[in-house]
Parts: sequence; structure tokens; C-alpha cells
Amino acid sequence: MVRESELIVAIRQVLGAPGERVVRWTGDDAAVVRARPLAVTSIDTVADGTHFTLATHSPADVGHKALAAALSDLAAMGAEPGEAYVSLALPAGFSPALALELVRGLATHALETGTTVAGGDVVRSGALVVSVAVTGWAESEGELAGRDGARPGDLVAVTGALGASAAGLLVLEGAGSADLDEATASRLAERHRRPTARLGAGRALVAAGATAMIDVSDGLATDARHLASASKVRLELSLAALPLAPGVEDLASATGRDARALAATGGEDYELLLTLPVDRWDEAAAAETRLTRLGSVVSGEGLELTGVRGAKRLHGYEHL
Amino acid sequence: MVRESELIVAIRQVLGAPGERVVRWTGDDAAVVRARPLAVTSIDTVADGTHFTLATHSPADVGHKALAAALSDLAAMGAEPGEAYVSLALPAGFSPALALELVRGLATHALETGTTVAGGDVVRSGALVVSVAVTGWAESEGELAGRDGARPGDLVAVTGALGASAAGLLVLEGAGSADLDEATASRLAERHRRPTARLGAGRALVAAGATAMIDVSDGLATDARHLASASKVRLELSLAALPLAPGVEDLASATGRDARALAATGGEDYELLLTLPVDRWDEAAAAETRLTRLGSVVSGEGLELTGVRGAKRLHGYEHL
Repeated sequence: MVRESELIVAIRQVLGAPGERVVRWTGDDAAVVRARPLAVTSIDTVADGTHFTLATHSPADVGHKALAAALSDLAAMGAEPGEAYVSLALPAGFSPALALELVRGLATHALETGTTVAGGDVVRSGALVVSVAVTGWAESEGELAGRDGARPGDLVAVTGALGASAAGLLVLEGAGSADLDEATASRLAERHRRPTARLGAGRALVAAGATAMIDVSDGLATDARHLASASKVRLELSLAALPLAPGVEDLASATGRDARALAATGGEDYELLLTLPVDRWDEAAAAETRLTRLGSVVSGEGLELTGVRGAKRLHGYEHL
Repeated sequence: MVRESELIVAIRQVLGAPGERVVRWTGDDAAVVRARPLAVTSIDTVADGTHFTLATHSPADVGHKALAAALSDLAAMGAEPGEAYVSLALPAGFSPALALELVRGLATHALETGTTVAGGDVVRSGALVVSVAVTGWAESEGELAGRDGARPGDLVAVTGALGASAAGLLVLEGAGSADLDEATASRLAERHRRPTARLGAGRALVAAGATAMIDVSDGLATDARHLASASKVRLELSLAALPLAPGVEDLASATGRDARALAATGGEDYELLLTLPVDRWDEAAAAETRLTRLGSVVSGEGLELTGVRGAKRLHGYEHL
């Protein structure tokens, strides 16, 4: 059995030097960071058997995914990423070598996103659970968007393309891959195992006028409801316009699914759903190369989905 | 099966209103908090079977303990507590009612300590794991102490009395309780189940000149080594002077243990071990009513423990 202290020393070596904001970090009881006016903080957890399995994800995938999922909350606010604090709860069979591989995957993605891993905790537990708290920073409230700012008359748009993560999960589970070329299947699986938060897009879209924003983590159908509820408005969206990631249509047809229903409920694409005054569309479309208009904000409450059969009954998933 | 959204609504009701620093909190993708110049952040995790068992801890105890353990890291830095971000990883058998009871225990302790629970995540997992990230605040580096400031010539002191948590665990496990009066046994058990971080003492002792500080979470023998190593000095401590919590001596003798060895290795008392220039002693002793001098800082490295048999071989525990 490795000693916690030895694993922590090895983890520190993997992490490298901290950013210049960081005054104190691993090795003290807590990290000390020079603040900017607003701290934007979220905690996100991935658990074996719920968000991943070690049959389909390498430990490095798990580390990457845990950080990306947490960073996606900062993207949805328009915050600039700062520090991450990582808790590893490791089951008895999960060796120190595997734990280090997990931390390497996380640290690599931290480097890619300008995030400093500034602290952590390692404990023994009955199951593999990785919690990541991330803090981002902003100069003023105007740099940030919440879920509650959508106003009747705004348009509703989504970044990027959806469905890759859900399709990738199906590929990893062995469904429909016989009908897919290898490169497409592998790209879909990669999108599920290693999602990326839309940090730059989030900041650019708030600057371009986004009135409300949420990351598509639970599936568009569910996340749109969250946004409508927080803003006390009704969203009317057509899934006919839903942008599909390459390969999603093929995978859906190979497995007898409706591609748009799959993309609207699958979750974990970590694209951004946002609302925007109509007259800011050009500015937003210039800020984010792939921005698709899905519908409108109207008075009322809830969500109206049209454009695929059974759209009214679509729900994303929740991890509980 | 409860839906995550319903549990989260219930959790929000338990939490009440946030502090005035908090601009956005639960209900958005991330919390937004007005910062002070330095953010002091730590993440701490308690896992079923490692830090507690549900046979000896109520869900409310678990919530209290998870927050107290995280806050103790802020106490050790001298930071003022601000916000907590809570991740609950719940196994299938852990009902929403139990989860709410856990959150109530945590929220009650948050209120007691001036901490705002500003965000969280709830996921299904294979084991009960509670991670708490806490952020505290300070105006300047001079308000904070690290582990690395101890200098040869400093004295070494500890707050409060030790051993209650380790003795309480023995009581909860049924050891020696026949020899203890009921009130003492129950007080020891309570200290194990519901520890308290020394937040006020930590701030006061930094103001009174503490050069380095660490919370006694892994046991004095281990935490003193951490402090010596970070400061690149040697600590010479006598356990003969170790202040024992009421009942620890009785419990130790009833179970055939050396009380001071038990108190030096048991951990989770969450008292503070600190170093201090000799000429600041009066000031520090005025700041913390129970402050006990254990020894001195000298040049060199490592830790010399004397005052009980086998002291050289004493080690606290690590949760891995």
C-alpha cells in the first residue's frame, strides 16, 4: 500500500509549477491565490459506474473528463479559468500508478486550458470518485452570464454540434460500430471520453451580448428547461435545426434511433445553449464560428420542443 | 429513485439565504462571490469506511465532519472562512432523506462557522464520499501562516487538548467504555463525530506572531514532521507536556494504551500546532487560552519526540 504522502509527492511532480497568481499551493494546508474582483466557483464530480467505467475509459480519460466537466460550468458563466482543486477517492484495487495516470490526464488538460491545479486530497474509499472544484475569475458582473437573464424576444442558439458524446458512448458500448467507418467511430468515442469545455466561446458570447447561458451537460432538452425555469420564460425550440456532430446521423440510423432525439437528450457534449437579443446575432455569430439558432424566448414558462417525433416527451438524463 | 433536481431543490431550502458576498449561487452553473485580495482554498474528502462508518456516525455527523475537516485547513492558514462547495457521491442504498439529513448537519455547522454553502453537486456512486472545497479570504499575506515559516529558536506549541477524537473512536468501537462514566464516554464520542476547526484561534495566533502552523489532522507525530519538512528545520518535542483531553487518560488505561502515544498519533483533533518566536509567547498565550509549549525549533531536519516510551517510532495515520 502506497503512503498518501508518497503519492502526493509524485502528484506534485506531475503538476509542475503553478501560475503566477498562486502565492501558496500544494504543501500547505490550503492554496493562497491573488484574487480578481469576482470569484466564480463550481464543484463537479464523476463517479465510476455513473459517468464512466474503467472498461471504456483509461484513468487519464477519467482525469481529463473530471476537469473538463468542472470547467464547463465556468465556460457557461463566461469566466476565465483559474485554479482547480482535485479530490481523488480511490478504491483498494486502484493502484498508485493508475492514480498517477489519472492525475497526468487531468494535469495535461489543465495545461491545455490555462488552469492551475492548486490543491487536492487523496483518500481511500469504496469506489472511484473524482471531485474537482474550479475557480475562475472576472472583473465585473457584466463579464458573466447566469441562467436567469433570458427575456421574451431573445433568440435561442447553441454552439458547435451535438450528439457526439452520446453517440461515442454507444460506440464504446459496442452498438452500431459495424456500420461506421473506424475513424468516425474512434472520433465519436474520443468525444465521449475526452470532452472539452467551451471556455473561449463562453467568454466571447457574453461579450457579444448573451443574456443567459448554460452548458449542455444533461442534454439540451433538460438544460433548456433549467434555463427557462431560472429566467421565468418559455423557450420554443425546433430540433429540426439541431446541428449534429459528424457520424451521429450514421450511428443513430445503425442503431435504430432518431439522431436529433439522441443529440437532444444525450448530454455531455459541453456545448453552450444561450439566449441573445435578436440585434446581437451578427456579433455573436462572428464570435463563435458555429452558432445555430434553435428558436425563441417567449413569455410563459417551460419548454416547447418541436421538429422530431415525440419531441414533447424528451428529457435529458440526470446522474442520480 | 429521487430525481437529482428534486433533491437539489430540497437542499437549497435547507441552506437558506447566502451571505452578502455571494452574487450568484445555487441555481447557476457556478457561484459568483465578491473576492477579497487573497483567496485561500482547500478541498477535503471523507469516505465511508475510511473516515467514518454509518454504524457510528449519523448522516448529520458525516455532513458536519466533512465541513469541519475542510475548514480546519483554513484555520491552519489563519484565513477567515467564506464559502463551501459540497459534492455528495451517494450509493444506491442512501436515500434522499438521508442525503438531506447529511446536508442539514453540514448546513448547521456552516451557520455556526459563518460559512456560506454556495454550490454543490450530487451524483450516484458506488460508495458514500463527501468532498468539500472551502474558500476563505485574507487581506494580505501577513494575515496568513504557512507550514514553511518555522525558524531555529522558535518555540513549538499546540492549542487545546489532544486525544479526544482517537479516544472517542475507541468508545464508538465499544472499547473500554465499561470503565468510563457515561458522560465522559459520550463527550469523547461526540468529539470524534463532530470535530470543530479552530478558526478563531488560527487567526488570533497568526496575529500574535505564529511563524508556521498546521492543523493536527493526521496526528501530532505526523503533522509535526510535515511542518519540519516544509520549514526545513528540526522540531524537538516532549510528549510529557502533551495536553490530554478529559477522559483520554482513563480510556487509555482501560484499553492498555499509553495516553500520550494515543493522543500524539490519533489525529482528527483539529487543534493547531504552531511555531512562534520566544518573545511572542505572552501575546500568543493571551490570544489562545489553552496553549501548551511542547518544545523548540532547531537547525537540522525531521522530528525528535521524547517523553513517552517508543516515542521515536510514533507515526500518525494517513487515510490511504
